[in-house]
Amino acid sequence: MTDVNTLGEFGLIERLTQPFQLRQRSSLKGVGDDAAVIDNGAHCTLVSTDMLVEGIHFDLAYTPLKHLGYKAIVVNLSDIYAMNAHPKQVLVSIAISSKYSVEALEELYAGIKAACDRYNVDLVGGDTTSSPRGMTISVTAIGEGKKERITYRNGAQPGDLICITGDLGAAYLGLQILEREKRIWQENPDVQPDLEGQAYLIGRQLKPEARRDMIEAFEKNNLIPTAMIDISDGLASEIFHLCKQSGTGALIEESGVPIHPEAQLMAIKFRLDPITCALSGGEDYELLFTIRPKDADKVRFLPDIYIAGEMLPPDAGIKLSTKGGKLHDLKAQGWRHF
Amino acid sequence: MTDVNTLGEFGLIERLTQPFQLRQRSSLKGVGDDAAVIDNGAHCTLVSTDMLVEGIHFDLAYTPLKHLGYKAIVVNLSDIYAMNAHPKQVLVSIAISSKYSVEALEELYAGIKAACDRYNVDLVGGDTTSSPRGMTISVTAIGEGKKERITYRNGAQPGDLICITGDLGAAYLGLQILEREKRIWQENPDVQPDLEGQAYLIGRQLKPEARRDMIEAFEKNNLIPTAMIDISDGLASEIFHLCKQSGTGALIEESGVPIHPEAQLMAIKFRLDPITCALSGGEDYELLFTIRPKDADKVRFLPDIYIAGEMLPPDAGIKLSTKGGKLHDLKAQGWRHF
Repeated sequence: MTDVNTLGEFGLIERLTQPFQLRQRSSLKGVGDDAAVIDNGAHCTLVSTDMLVEGIHFDLAYTPLKHLGYKAIVVNLSDIYAMNAHPKQVLVSIAISSKYSVEALEELYAGIKAACDRYNVDLVGGDTTSSPRGMTISVTAIGEGKKERITYRNGAQPGDLICITGDLGAAYLGLQILEREKRIWQENPDVQPDLEGQAYLIGRQLKPEARRDMIEAFEKNNLIPTAMIDISDGLASEIFHLCKQSGTGALIEESGVPIHPEAQLMAIKFRLDPITCALSGGEDYELLFTIRPKDADKVRFLPDIYIAGEMLPPDAGIKLSTKGGKLHDLKAQGWRHF
Repeated sequence: MTDVNTLGEFGLIERLTQPFQLRQRSSLKGVGDDAAVIDNGAHCTLVSTDMLVEGIHFDLAYTPLKHLGYKAIVVNLSDIYAMNAHPKQVLVSIAISSKYSVEALEELYAGIKAACDRYNVDLVGGDTTSSPRGMTISVTAIGEGKKERITYRNGAQPGDLICITGDLGAAYLGLQILEREKRIWQENPDVQPDLEGQAYLIGRQLKPEARRDMIEAFEKNNLIPTAMIDISDGLASEIFHLCKQSGTGALIEESGVPIHPEAQLMAIKFRLDPITCALSGGEDYELLFTIRPKDADKVRFLPDIYIAGEMLPPDAGIKLSTKGGKLHDLKAQGWRHF
């Protein structure tokens, strides 16, 4: 018998889904991108789904249910934006133990509604059931996109520029703060948590946003990225996905990776290297995408987009060029959840 | 604080989803039918999702993983057929504890693949994650249908005939057999389970099928039901849904409710009333639908469809006319899962 830990998340998915083939003409893209793509003639329907499990993906000791509901929606919308498409509907299934009151669930749904309002998506279905223990939330997001604008992971070519939106590592550091305060509180319940001045980092962890603004900016500027993925598992893991599926190598410049000043400071407080937090932290829900060099001027003047490297031929490998001028092999993170 | 048990499944869903409105023009139908309906111009996309939780919806003591995978798909396809549409794609998310081996998951996925092959649907996505305990499976089915053929729960009128496919109660009795043998085995692990001659009832529980053949027969015979729902929670609960949403009453004839001879016999062995098993048993995955009286001849000559009553004006209530000639008020089942 083979332990699931030995394969890692992506190895396990590959092994389990390898026997499946696509037969429906409308199935343009199956497993292996941010969302499935279904051809509807006039446009494409995109579908993405995520499961959040209490004790694995969230800890109710420091996660308000309203934030949890908001985040559960946003992380799915992020997958649709990562295809350069627009989310339109969501379905939400929850399994809950009887320890949750109706009022607690209303808090969760208030967060779901806030996200639906903010991103203009409709809740159109789901399932509600009980569970022997804890809470599991499964969200399916449905989007719409023009076939010629949909951006997959596999379209990058050597020479394409690597772009990153926003900043990376902050959500991970926000989580470290919350975990630290939880430990302190567990040791001494009289101590009030010290979250003063940490609103940015904690907000990035508890209430992330998806980059709808970027997809709209691409449209306005007549830009179609050659490949795109959302940064949910850390930059290193995502650049590996783009390179693997595009058949390229990549060079990332440490100096081009955007890190918020508060994340820089907090990383040092935790004795962590800020670039490691950006590369392996996860839960940023920013976009990583590649563009043709001729499109460089289109992104150079857009706010909140950073050019952080270049795609290379496959034999060049996947490298990080440090601020000190050294070249390191990048390593993809394993599956953090097993 | 309000205990979730006090509202029941449908009351809880109503309370949680009531604040949500549909804003997208493409959202034709949201919460409250077997599937959501999204308008795509040329045709509609249907989306349905279900969550199965270990210890609530399935017991691995007597459920082979391959059957579980098969059933998880079929119950979702059944929701798409219940809209008079065709499933085309599925997404499967699983959360599993580390007690499951890769080989166990391959068994589960072999069942998923068998169902995808049988019903000609593509696996196009999902999520794989860990869970602190047990297994949770969330399946989303995506279908396609012509707008003018899609059948909702709310289209029935007084005078419409009530039709049922297949037979009811068998899956519930199959479950009773499996639960009995599990108890006996727990008391004395040397006793071999006695499942001899029970293939039909146990098969209905462990490996249900969805009624694709009926949707195809409707098309061939140019029939569009006025309302339809799949029978997953027992006939009584489903007829309440149709009546509530259509604004009608109903009369069900006990003599018209199809019950398999083996289910009749087994019900008596368990000292249960066969009609109670049919009304409240659940997991039949048959179709309950209504037709205009003028279409009666179209269904009369179709195999495996039974006319079991008539929709009435709303003030007539929802009644069962027994074989003994008595009229009873029908009661809808509560939420069995809390």
